[in-house]
Amino acid sequence: MATGITAQELAEHLGGSLRHCPPERLLSAARGLDEASIETVSFLSGAKYRAKAQGSKAGLILVDGRVELEGVPTLVVDQPHWRFAQVVALLHPEPEPNWSGESIHPSASIAPGVRIGPQVTVGARTTVAAGCVIHPGVHIGEDCVLGEGCELFSGVVLYRRTQLGERVRIHANTVLGADGYGYTFVAGRHEKVPQVGWVEVGDDVEIGAGTTIDRGALGATWIGSGTKIDNLCQIAHNVRVGGHCLIVAQTGISGSVTLGDYATLAGKVGVVDHVHIGARSMVGGNSVVSKDVPEGAFVTGYPARPHRQWMESQAALSRLPGIIRKLAKEKQAD
Amino acid sequence: MATGITAQELAEHLGGSLRHCPPERLLSAARGLDEASIETVSFLSGAKYRAKAQGSKAGLILVDGRVELEGVPTLVVDQPHWRFAQVVALLHPEPEPNWSGESIHPSASIAPGVRIGPQVTVGARTTVAAGCVIHPGVHIGEDCVLGEGCELFSGVVLYRRTQLGERVRIHANTVLGADGYGYTFVAGRHEKVPQVGWVEVGDDVEIGAGTTIDRGALGATWIGSGTKIDNLCQIAHNVRVGGHCLIVAQTGISGSVTLGDYATLAGKVGVVDHVHIGARSMVGGNSVVSKDVPEGAFVTGYPARPHRQWMESQAALSRLPGIIRKLAKEKQAD
Amino acid sequence: MATGITAQELAEHLGGSLRHCPPERLLSAARGLDEASIETVSFLSGAKYRAKAQGSKAGLILVDGRVELEGVPTLVVDQPHWRFAQVVALLHPEPEPNWSGESIHPSASIAPGVRIGPQVTVGARTTVAAGCVIHPGVHIGEDCVLGEGCELFSGVVLYRRTQLGERVRIHANTVLGADGYGYTFVAGRHEKVPQVGWVEVGDDVEIGAGTTIDRGALGATWIGSGTKIDNLCQIAHNVRVGGHCLIVAQTGISGSVTLGDYATLAGKVGVVDHVHIGARSMVGGNSVVSKDVPEGAFVTGYPARPHRQWMESQAALSRLPGIIRKLAKEKQAD
Repeated sequence: MATGITAQELAEHLGGSLRHCPPERLLSAARGLDEASIETVSFLSGAKYRAKAQGSKAGLILVDGRVELEGVPTLVVDQPHWRFAQVVALLHPEPEPNWSGESIHPSASIAPGVRIGPQVTVGARTTVAAGCVIHPGVHIGEDCVLGEGCELFSGVVLYRRTQLGERVRIHANTVLGADGYGYTFVAGRHEKVPQVGWVEVGDDVEIGAGTTIDRGALGATWIGSGTKIDNLCQIAHNVRVGGHCLIVAQTGISGSVTLGDYATLAGKVGVVDHVHIGARSMVGGNSVVSKDVPEGAFVTGYPARPHRQWMESQAALSRLPGIIRKLAKEKQAD
Repeated sequence: MATGITAQELAEHLGGSLRHCPPERLLSAARGLDEASIETVSFLSGAKYRAKAQGSKAGLILVDGRVELEGVPTLVVDQPHWRFAQVVALLHPEPEPNWSGESIHPSASIAPGVRIGPQVTVGARTTVAAGCVIHPGVHIGEDCVLGEGCELFSGVVLYRRTQLGERVRIHANTVLGADGYGYTFVAGRHEKVPQVGWVEVGDDVEIGAGTTIDRGALGATWIGSGTKIDNLCQIAHNVRVGGHCLIVAQTGISGSVTLGDYATLAGKVGVVDHVHIGARSMVGGNSVVSKDVPEGAFVTGYPARPHRQWMESQAALSRLPGIIRKLAKEKQAD
Repeated sequence: MATGITAQELAEHLGGSLRHCPPERLLSAARGLDEASIETVSFLSGAKYRAKAQGSKAGLILVDGRVELEGVPTLVVDQPHWRFAQVVALLHPEPEPNWSGESIHPSASIAPGVRIGPQVTVGARTTVAAGCVIHPGVHIGEDCVLGEGCELFSGVVLYRRTQLGERVRIHANTVLGADGYGYTFVAGRHEKVPQVGWVEVGDDVEIGAGTTIDRGALGATWIGSGTKIDNLCQIAHNVRVGGHCLIVAQTGISGSVTLGDYATLAGKVGVVDHVHIGARSMVGGNSVVSKDVPEGAFVTGYPARPHRQWMESQAALSRLPGIIRKLAKEKQAD
């Protein structure tokens, strides 16, 4: 972690002007408006989250010149999202990979009795607890933590800082911790917003083969205890999946979605970003969820609506060609 | 294989009571009701498959107290599916992985002239026939069989007991034999139903990159000769794909589905579990098949229906907003 | 590359008869009708592309007996597509893999300072430019080119001849260059059409985890500079993606599709083969594009239509059950 930078230094670095902020304020991390504190930097892009920014605890918020927040410490810049990406890169630099040539890094800590197949690599400072089984060809990055009794099958990749609870099973070629899909459009180019978070998985989670779970942009992407995820699912950055959920094959969950406990997403479901799916709800196969789903609801379709309503619509749709023919005939008869 | 357990021992182990079953009956395997024989244990959950249970050849069927089968050997337990999971674990224990530290296990049998790249691992007792080409970074588990002339590209993972026919080509990072998605809900938790089957592939099959084919729960998941599977497909446990089928990219096939010979599933198709798709039938792209498809049929949509009917519905749907406007106008005119 | 074969030799090899073609004409490559030249062989299957064949510059076109092209050099054969597959195999033989036993092939050229993790393999004649970072367990085939500053995460597989520009980042377990899904149906079997092309990626491209991009059938599959591709996407053979496109998770693009610059495909989109998606257009999530999309358009649905129109249809559909009930009531009242 960086030790921080003053508001004044940041203003000079980004070429902006401070308002309501003591220039000597020390800032040590980038955070969203919700998770902000006096030592952290956030940003406001457009007017949508203006109220949230007004109430935020951030030590400094990057804004563009059109936004005026009363008494809130801001740094006025052009393109606040792009400037924020630069702040992330500055305050959260990714360490250079440091491969010793040895497959298991000497600073990794592997509990006695852990079984490890050939061709496995384990990064610096990673700890693997007792009872774990690591199949051939697994690649575990730096600073990961594996709880007791985990089993990783061949080809699993854990990016740096991935944290697994106890008895987590991950099937072949699944990837935890790749960068989220985060860009900001600047001068005709999609500029990368650095992704510096991690993936955190509870106890007794099983994840199928070929699934991808991206790390959070700044904090964690989070999978609750007891949840079971099938093959070829995509879980984007900052998603929070509750406990004991079922996520069936080829489902895709967009960024910052939250799932309550015991939610079920049947196969091939898509979920639009920032939606909340209530506890004990059920989403039918191949549906696209585009707004919040209440607790205990059963929704289906594209866009997803109450299952019964969707069934009625589909039944009506299959009768529609006949109805249109009949209306045309009646017209002629008039 | 375990040598078996008596019905009496099983009753004591699970805490249930026997009906119509000699206590000394020796039981050596777990099977579904359809594949059962006098030495095997099955289960009946709910009343749906009652008739099938009544006619089953199983040596013992786990049932709950509400079901009475005439003259059929049963063991009355609470939560038969969960108890059955315990029987599977008992009678079909997974061998502990046994890595010798060598990449190619000394007990593996590799035919002369097989070309093997660097970083390949081959498990105990696996046999690789003449003419095979194994690219760098392939991981083959224990007790696998590769027929003559197979080619596996980098990152392919074969779980234990996978069987390939002749001239099978599997592209990079595809996984055969991961656990099927099988759980049973007990006391607020999704408990795993052990998956102890395998994947069996015929001759002249080609499988694209990043695809996943799960092993059967108890027996085989089966891919017929001459079938071609594209990238990023998901084929669940116990599926039986006929010969010479085409399965296009990102298609997902749920558990226990059967495909007749020469069936074609276009891209992104989803198939609900236990459905039969007839020989020489065609499923249009992005469709969801929720009931049986007759031989030679062409179906499309969600849910899939005859293609012509779907086309008509879609045409009618695009006219619908105009029709509604017109009806409203006529109403006003009255 | 093969040095070629005469038209006469080819006629004898395939068992066909030449028309309008000097028997001594030397043919050195297979090409599509569009990219053909005097030294190349093409084919015409059915009558659909007859006009294109009539105007082609090909040195020889395989046709079946029912097609007569005026003054065009043809070879009349049965099953031209299948015969063309044989020509491809003949003129574009894939080199046998040649693993030296060393992980980094001695003929590979790795710039000084490139960081390479353990368990990486690099094929013969591949060049890796300065500043690249290759994480543990990456597999790079023969004759690949990596520009300056690329980063490949664990489990990435590049098939032979893959070409990456500068600063390309590819996340874990993504595959570039697997065979396209190309078969031709002959005597009850799907016969493989050899895939001998490659994948070419511009500068500043980022590709997520678990994605697959197939190589071209004969030439390149092409990803333009500045384009960003998310996780678990499928991009088929011969696709040409423009610059600065966004392709969101689980999208599938069929063969020979072209995307203009700055096109956006939201999550789970499917695109039918040979379609053109115009520059700066936007395809809504979960849509299926079945015909060309104009520049700057916003389309949604299955099949995709103008977004506004799709919204209207969906709104009308949700009102339909009520309208049908009302019509039935009015009928009774009459």
